[in-house]
Amino acid sequence: MSRALEKPRTGFLVTFDAAKEPIWSLPGETILDCARRAGVRVSSVCGGRGLCKSCVIRIKEGPAEEASPQDVEFFSPAEIAHNWRRACQTFPVGNCTVEVSARAGAAPLRTQIRSEDVWVHPDPAVRLCPITVTEASLEHPAADDYRLMRALNEKWPGAGSRIDVEVLRTLPSAMRAPDGQLEAAVRFGEVVGVLRPEKKPFLGLAIDLGTTNIAGLLVDLRTGRTLKSEGIENPQATYGADVISRIAHARSSPEILRNLRDLAVRGINDLARTLCAARSLTTDRIAEIVVVGNTAMHHLFLGLPVTHLGTVPFAPVASSPLDVKARDTGLEAMPGAYVHLLSNIAGFVGADHTAVLLAIGSEHERRTILVLDIGTNTEISLLHQGKLTSLSCPSGPALEGGHIRCGMRSAPGAIEAVKITGEEVHFETIDGAHPVGICGSGVLDVTAQLYLAGIVNSGGRMREDHPRVRSRAGQRQFVLADKSQTHGRSVVFTQHDIRAVQLAKGAIRAAIEVLLHDAGLQTGQIDQIIIAGAFGAYIDLANAIAIGMLPDVPLDRIAQVGNAAGIGAKLALVSHPHRVTAQNIAASSRYIEMSGLAAFNTAFMHSIAFPKTRKN
Amino acid sequence: MSRALEKPRTGFLVTFDAAKEPIWSLPGETILDCARRAGVRVSSVCGGRGLCKSCVIRIKEGPAEEASPQDVEFFSPAEIAHNWRRACQTFPVGNCTVEVSARAGAAPLRTQIRSEDVWVHPDPAVRLCPITVTEASLEHPAADDYRLMRALNEKWPGAGSRIDVEVLRTLPSAMRAPDGQLEAAVRFGEVVGVLRPEKKPFLGLAIDLGTTNIAGLLVDLRTGRTLKSEGIENPQATYGADVISRIAHARSSPEILRNLRDLAVRGINDLARTLCAARSLTTDRIAEIVVVGNTAMHHLFLGLPVTHLGTVPFAPVASSPLDVKARDTGLEAMPGAYVHLLSNIAGFVGADHTAVLLAIGSEHERRTILVLDIGTNTEISLLHQGKLTSLSCPSGPALEGGHIRCGMRSAPGAIEAVKITGEEVHFETIDGAHPVGICGSGVLDVTAQLYLAGIVNSGGRMREDHPRVRSRAGQRQFVLADKSQTHGRSVVFTQHDIRAVQLAKGAIRAAIEVLLHDAGLQTGQIDQIIIAGAFGAYIDLANAIAIGMLPDVPLDRIAQVGNAAGIGAKLALVSHPHRVTAQNIAASSRYIEMSGLAAFNTAFMHSIAFPKTRKN
Repeated sequence: MSRALEKPRTGFLVTFDAAKEPIWSLPGETILDCARRAGVRVSSVCGGRGLCKSCVIRIKEGPAEEASPQDVEFFSPAEIAHNWRRACQTFPVGNCTVEVSARAGAAPLRTQIRSEDVWVHPDPAVRLCPITVTEASLEHPAADDYRLMRALNEKWPGAGSRIDVEVLRTLPSAMRAPDGQLEAAVRFGEVVGVLRPEKKPFLGLAIDLGTTNIAGLLVDLRTGRTLKSEGIENPQATYGADVISRIAHARSSPEILRNLRDLAVRGINDLARTLCAARSLTTDRIAEIVVVGNTAMHHLFLGLPVTHLGTVPFAPVASSPLDVKARDTGLEAMPGAYVHLLSNIAGFVGADHTAVLLAIGSEHERRTILVLDIGTNTEISLLHQGKLTSLSCPSGPALEGGHIRCGMRSAPGAIEAVKITGEEVHFETIDGAHPVGICGSGVLDVTAQLYLAGIVNSGGRMREDHPRVRSRAGQRQFVLADKSQTHGRSVVFTQHDIRAVQLAKGAIRAAIEVLLHDAGLQTGQIDQIIIAGAFGAYIDLANAIAIGMLPDVPLDRIAQVGNAAGIGAKLALVSHPHRVTAQNIAASSRYIEMSGLAAFNTAFMHSIAFPKTRKN
Repeated sequence: MSRALEKPRTGFLVTFDAAKEPIWSLPGETILDCARRAGVRVSSVCGGRGLCKSCVIRIKEGPAEEASPQDVEFFSPAEIAHNWRRACQTFPVGNCTVEVSARAGAAPLRTQIRSEDVWVHPDPAVRLCPITVTEASLEHPAADDYRLMRALNEKWPGAGSRIDVEVLRTLPSAMRAPDGQLEAAVRFGEVVGVLRPEKKPFLGLAIDLGTTNIAGLLVDLRTGRTLKSEGIENPQATYGADVISRIAHARSSPEILRNLRDLAVRGINDLARTLCAARSLTTDRIAEIVVVGNTAMHHLFLGLPVTHLGTVPFAPVASSPLDVKARDTGLEAMPGAYVHLLSNIAGFVGADHTAVLLAIGSEHERRTILVLDIGTNTEISLLHQGKLTSLSCPSGPALEGGHIRCGMRSAPGAIEAVKITGEEVHFETIDGAHPVGICGSGVLDVTAQLYLAGIVNSGGRMREDHPRVRSRAGQRQFVLADKSQTHGRSVVFTQHDIRAVQLAKGAIRAAIEVLLHDAGLQTGQIDQIIIAGAFGAYIDLANAIAIGMLPDVPLDRIAQVGNAAGIGAKLALVSHPHRVTAQNIAASSRYIEMSGLAAFNTAFMHSIAFPKTRKN
């Protein structure tokens, strides 16, 4: 039970530095809850359950609640005295001003889409047809819809058979343009929008709705070119960093399911407006949207119940591709526009993975290829002899900096690369700023470097005799940057952090082994490993092999393709044939459910340790 | 300009006898506006423009505003002294209690559907398919949608290809029925609802959305039988009795357009709930709805702008048949249910007329038939040699008792039939109650009887030497019932009322003549006249011929078919082939626009007088 339920208090004015206005706390609300309502960014990896250490704040002014026993353990006495607390464990006890720690408040930088753009021959589901409509007269007082359809089908025979009702609502003004010049957006016979001709692009929007970030590509459907791409943090993040936290929250009440849905929808709408504004356009010119995401994101976005996604056998509500009116999703677009969602393969192998498989051209692939999308949940597919097998494993948030003592988002001051030589530690921070914490690629690096430097043994245990290793609250920790370097709290990597990385990389490796064993393959037979996703784009491959996360293949056989899911979404947006291909990919994929699978458990036990041979 | 704009006052407590609670008046609000907000029934034929005399009220307690000059003219000094006023012309000037006159407050009785029910072989667009679904398992963790579609297509090959997104939202609980027994409502491959098997009807709803009344038929789509039919007053009535008033209001602001739409939608939903409740059912079992109405009602129901319906050349926004998700209209039904709207033929020949033509089997008709739907707007079609020609004429509200001095709805106390012999007047009132006013059929009767008795000459002028004729405010009036009979104000029929009926019947007759002339036909060549609609069901045909509204054909050639529009809606609901027929009827109809048509104007001038030969 969250402490919010135990200690209801109410009615204090809470001021966040980052907010425009103070907010009144409600009964039973923590500082984190207040921040959520106020729209203030406070990282909350565990979703406010008191399980992680991400939501660090300080009561700058006003009374502070006595620290909880867990916070006493987590913070130093000096920090407690300075009113540092975890926001999810702290209730306002008076009007107060709250400072959000640099790590918790960091706005992620690397939400930009790091991937090559692709071009595909435009053949979209929706087309823009220029037409000339006539006026109604007393001799021919034909209805607006009739005159529109006649003009459309005269110029584009067979193009149109019906008009969306929301388009009808806009028709009278559109049809009375002085020159009768119009452009009809037509989708499989249905008019989904009517525009005045302007020298502007005909917009489509491809969205990769990730658990952590939402990436968007604004595309001109006539040219197939990406006009602008950008990413934002998924606003659902305050409900936890991983899908399991979100599912747990969504199951707890219909209101929270609705709120999670609203957050995703608002996030996408905000992103869409930003993308359009960058090209002096508006969202009402968006004629079609493709959304991909993992199955939980897909369901939360559509408002589908996720109860059964969180329970054996993890059956999704919907796996087929869907065409849903944008208005039924809440997304902004042309009056009659559709949102297309690619197929989900399984409860934890979602439409985003389908999009990755589409982006890498898996339908033509005859080589033996492993495709990984690493995240809090890692999806892996094996392409072998033209057949596709997929599975997923829960790899947790550690590899993204979650549940790591000094873990943080990819923001300025995040340690992103580490090299340890003897007692010397060299690191790079994002933007070269003073170190604030460690982001995902830094976590992988420091783990590998500690192991390669012999500071951690193959079982994962940290030496205590290294000058940079110290003990705090009964736990060893390696000091990456001390207070002299950080201008604040030191940045450390703890024994617990090592364990968290071991569990994550062990699960990934075990899943790879299950797939290889299922196909009767050895590591050497892998022609290529493709690593998709934001995290995968930044990791040091040698370090990933060094800790045994990836099989030991020559580095040139590994490709980091960045946001392939977004690219797949774009392909499905611009090209209807690609949409059909995506459907075929998902339908022909064999899925292995790993829950309770003995082979996985065995492989996992063998994969937790670091490789016996240190290879640098 | 309405007086509401000239004399803003505010903030008095207005108590209506018929309302549960008093209501605070808003700035500029008349008593009529207050009544609209309070949901109190006050007849307002002209829609509150001060043009008619229907909204009579009395300030029972509290201060009354000085009577307007028009009201001084309309009411007797004694009535003025007793604070009788017109609600649309009166502003609260203090806290007050308001009595609504019996005539203005009368709830209509004759909204029941007076027509024979028809049976048609059930072949609806949506079908109920019993299926047995399997559970998901770890071995086969297939998605809910996949298992549903597999079960559906195994038992009903090719039946299903997609599931509505709202149905998906309900799927997880439905799919986990203990025995796996389900019924899928499927419409052209789309699953629009999933039900637990119950021994209950599979519901469809046919709605005739009339300007005055809304008629509903609740139908079992499996048997084709009507389970229950009922009518209610169209709640839009406070915005005027005729479509022109409604259009004028809707054009004045988007809020009023929205309010008119909401009123229609709420009215239909209320009716649907009442119909379902009568059979212990709920609206979520309604799988399909068919709505017909005149073009203005059709547009107002869908929220389509009606601006151009009120302007030459009166082009509708939409004339094609429409399939719209019930949720996009606001109607209650199964999660994915559709509303089907039949084709409109023209701006003033709507889907209700298409439905009438469907109901009478016009597609097979080779005889020469006139089809009339008489109302404030009268639609007339001529079937001749298998060809269909339609037109409409503005016949005004007089024939429904609107804009008639003592006109009222068909409610208890309404004089509905009149016979004049010498100085004797015999009349029948609805329910045999004390006479309160005159409803539509009474208006036609009294006009004919005054003419036949020689009290009115063929030019329409009233004799002044009849003992029952008196003069008030410079106008002659015939006393049908004096105060001794009415227990209140006497019921009279004025010279103005005669003129109003002359204009109405003249327009109808002129339209008929235009159609006959267009086809080169004489009256004697008419094989049948079919009169549809609520008003038409109650009129005395001999009197209608006596005043020249209808051509002089043998009475046995005239059929009064009642609410044929509702029957047509039912046919289109139960039978998809009939829906296609309706589309063909509308598409093949030739339309004659009469605005500015010289032939109509000439015929109209000739039709205003009563026939030279008095024929009884």
